[in-house]
Amino acid sequence: MSAERIVNFSAGPSVLPLSVLEQAASEMTNYRGSGMSVMEMSHRSKVYLNIFEETKADLKRIMKVPDTHEILFLHGGATLQFSAVPMNLIGKTGKADYAVTGNFSGLAMKEAKKYGEINVACSSEDRDHTYIPEQKDIKLTPDASYFHYCSNNTIYGTEWKYIPDVGNMPLVCDMSSDILSFPIDVSKYGLIYAGVQKNMAPAGAAVVILDKSLAGSELPMTPKLMSYKVNIDGDSMHNTPPCYTIYMLGLVLKWLDKQGGVEGMEKQKTEKAKLIYDVLDDSKMFVGFADKAARSDMNVTFKTASEELDNKFIKEATNSGFENLKGHRVLGGMRASIYNAMPMEGVKKLAEFMRDFEVNN
Amino acid sequence: MSAERIVNFSAGPSVLPLSVLEQAASEMTNYRGSGMSVMEMSHRSKVYLNIFEETKADLKRIMKVPDTHEILFLHGGATLQFSAVPMNLIGKTGKADYAVTGNFSGLAMKEAKKYGEINVACSSEDRDHTYIPEQKDIKLTPDASYFHYCSNNTIYGTEWKYIPDVGNMPLVCDMSSDILSFPIDVSKYGLIYAGVQKNMAPAGAAVVILDKSLAGSELPMTPKLMSYKVNIDGDSMHNTPPCYTIYMLGLVLKWLDKQGGVEGMEKQKTEKAKLIYDVLDDSKMFVGFADKAARSDMNVTFKTASEELDNKFIKEATNSGFENLKGHRVLGGMRASIYNAMPMEGVKKLAEFMRDFEVNN
Repeated sequence: MSAERIVNFSAGPSVLPLSVLEQAASEMTNYRGSGMSVMEMSHRSKVYLNIFEETKADLKRIMKVPDTHEILFLHGGATLQFSAVPMNLIGKTGKADYAVTGNFSGLAMKEAKKYGEINVACSSEDRDHTYIPEQKDIKLTPDASYFHYCSNNTIYGTEWKYIPDVGNMPLVCDMSSDILSFPIDVSKYGLIYAGVQKNMAPAGAAVVILDKSLAGSELPMTPKLMSYKVNIDGDSMHNTPPCYTIYMLGLVLKWLDKQGGVEGMEKQKTEKAKLIYDVLDDSKMFVGFADKAARSDMNVTFKTASEELDNKFIKEATNSGFENLKGHRVLGGMRASIYNAMPMEGVKKLAEFMRDFEVNN
Repeated sequence: MSAERIVNFSAGPSVLPLSVLEQAASEMTNYRGSGMSVMEMSHRSKVYLNIFEETKADLKRIMKVPDTHEILFLHGGATLQFSAVPMNLIGKTGKADYAVTGNFSGLAMKEAKKYGEINVACSSEDRDHTYIPEQKDIKLTPDASYFHYCSNNTIYGTEWKYIPDVGNMPLVCDMSSDILSFPIDVSKYGLIYAGVQKNMAPAGAAVVILDKSLAGSELPMTPKLMSYKVNIDGDSMHNTPPCYTIYMLGLVLKWLDKQGGVEGMEKQKTEKAKLIYDVLDDSKMFVGFADKAARSDMNVTFKTASEELDNKFIKEATNSGFENLKGHRVLGGMRASIYNAMPMEGVKKLAEFMRDFEVNN
């Protein structure tokens, strides 16, 4: 890590691997002898299509995406998928089941209500989203078109430790904040989507991985650019895609390969999260927000006994080069987002800083 | 222009100013002492909000956007606006008027049909989109919610030389390929939109400038992220915006200031287009596609008498460092897109190359 760079715990957009940024900078005015920036390339040009295809192939290999599923690079982040998912998938029966375990899954559920009958199959709202419901607590609607959940709750710092069993119903998952951080059996999912700005690339796109057989029954009012069928048929090029963001994702995937792929990332994330959770468990000052059983490896949420002390912690941390530790306004307290690109060294330093802070305060 | 860079006539994504790319590269790993890349910044952080606000203020100043109008930076390019415009604006009367003068205005019209009753107020299809209809040819629907046209037709190489007079009806214009290339009286428009990947920034966003009084009557099924009201209220941050693209637009606007703003760009574009049109007018080999009265200053379309000779021209041009001169597959022939960032020098070289080619063939 360059000495001048701060340790960036932002929840998204988030830290990117320094080597990736350095490579992007070095290729900015002339990509590998093409005489152009990637930003300046026609998306239909051979040189750009090579970047696009390689990125798609790398993601397919790294996530072991089966041939039944298609990878799409779409505009709009996860939020546009909150609408696209029901617009494309709810038509079969007019009904869908949602698990509400945090802020974004709640927003997704609310948006889906515009397009059909929505059943909240389970919710952790009764205990302020500090936990994840168990399998036995999920009440499925027999004829729901799909079941939607969010695997990691960025704001509350909880994560699903299991894949919900919903029988033959298509399983839809918002993986915005934990995609690529551990191996996933993609075949179990009807559709996976993720805003790219946490574990994948700079903000401005979403990756959608879907079972191709689910496409083609969108509601008549679905904007053409939001039709999965149209995007499958056009290989994500119904219009000009977010080309540079896809290129950046490609660089991140090459970096991820060097880390041992998703298996390597899982090992790292477990170690990194343990460093901070151990501090919380040993501490008489810091209290974790989430139930131990539901703790997220990506977003660690915690606080002290008073807002005053929280603020002191955040201020001193910032002065020591730790940025974006302030918790989301909904929760207050602190949050350390430790996505794939957060170096182990940064987490070690934070853990050390927390222990020192407790001793001195 | 760096000696290694090619002359890039791509219709979009297109050439960007070299100085802008160089600055982006130099700030890539550490933006002005922040210790972060712009790509890594929380969109809610002070350092990023400064970039965002400055870009918005610069665009407002450069385009003289009145206080009645709001500037939005949105996901999805112009194509998502093909849906967003009717979803947000057609509700008042259920009807809208469209001028069809090329490929994209035709696509916009077709998409709008999902959301209401569409009248083709004028069309240049009868003569293969080689011309722009006159004011007297526009047949307005008295109670249409808005009138939509596309000011420059990228594929056919024609442009509207006048602003259609549609009385009190809100005027909606797709300016994707000529925005920022000349001064515009924004107050005459209800809504202007533009995909950014031609005259503004790398692909992956759209700029929308709209009369605020038009927002708030979207159809019930409008995805929340596509509601103009939601985006005005959230200052384009209902979700994470395409942050880096907006930063790049900011750099382009600073560059544009140095060129004398939109007045300076207008002077340059007229000179640049004249260089190539003069070759066409003097030539016995090259024929322009568009009627002289409708010729675009942004996209010059032309061909020779045979496909064989076209191909020879494109091949030799490519070997001489002129990229992306092949015409769109719909038209064939050649197209030179000479947006704001195309240096005068590049156009001069092309004009010279064309004259030489004619002498030698």
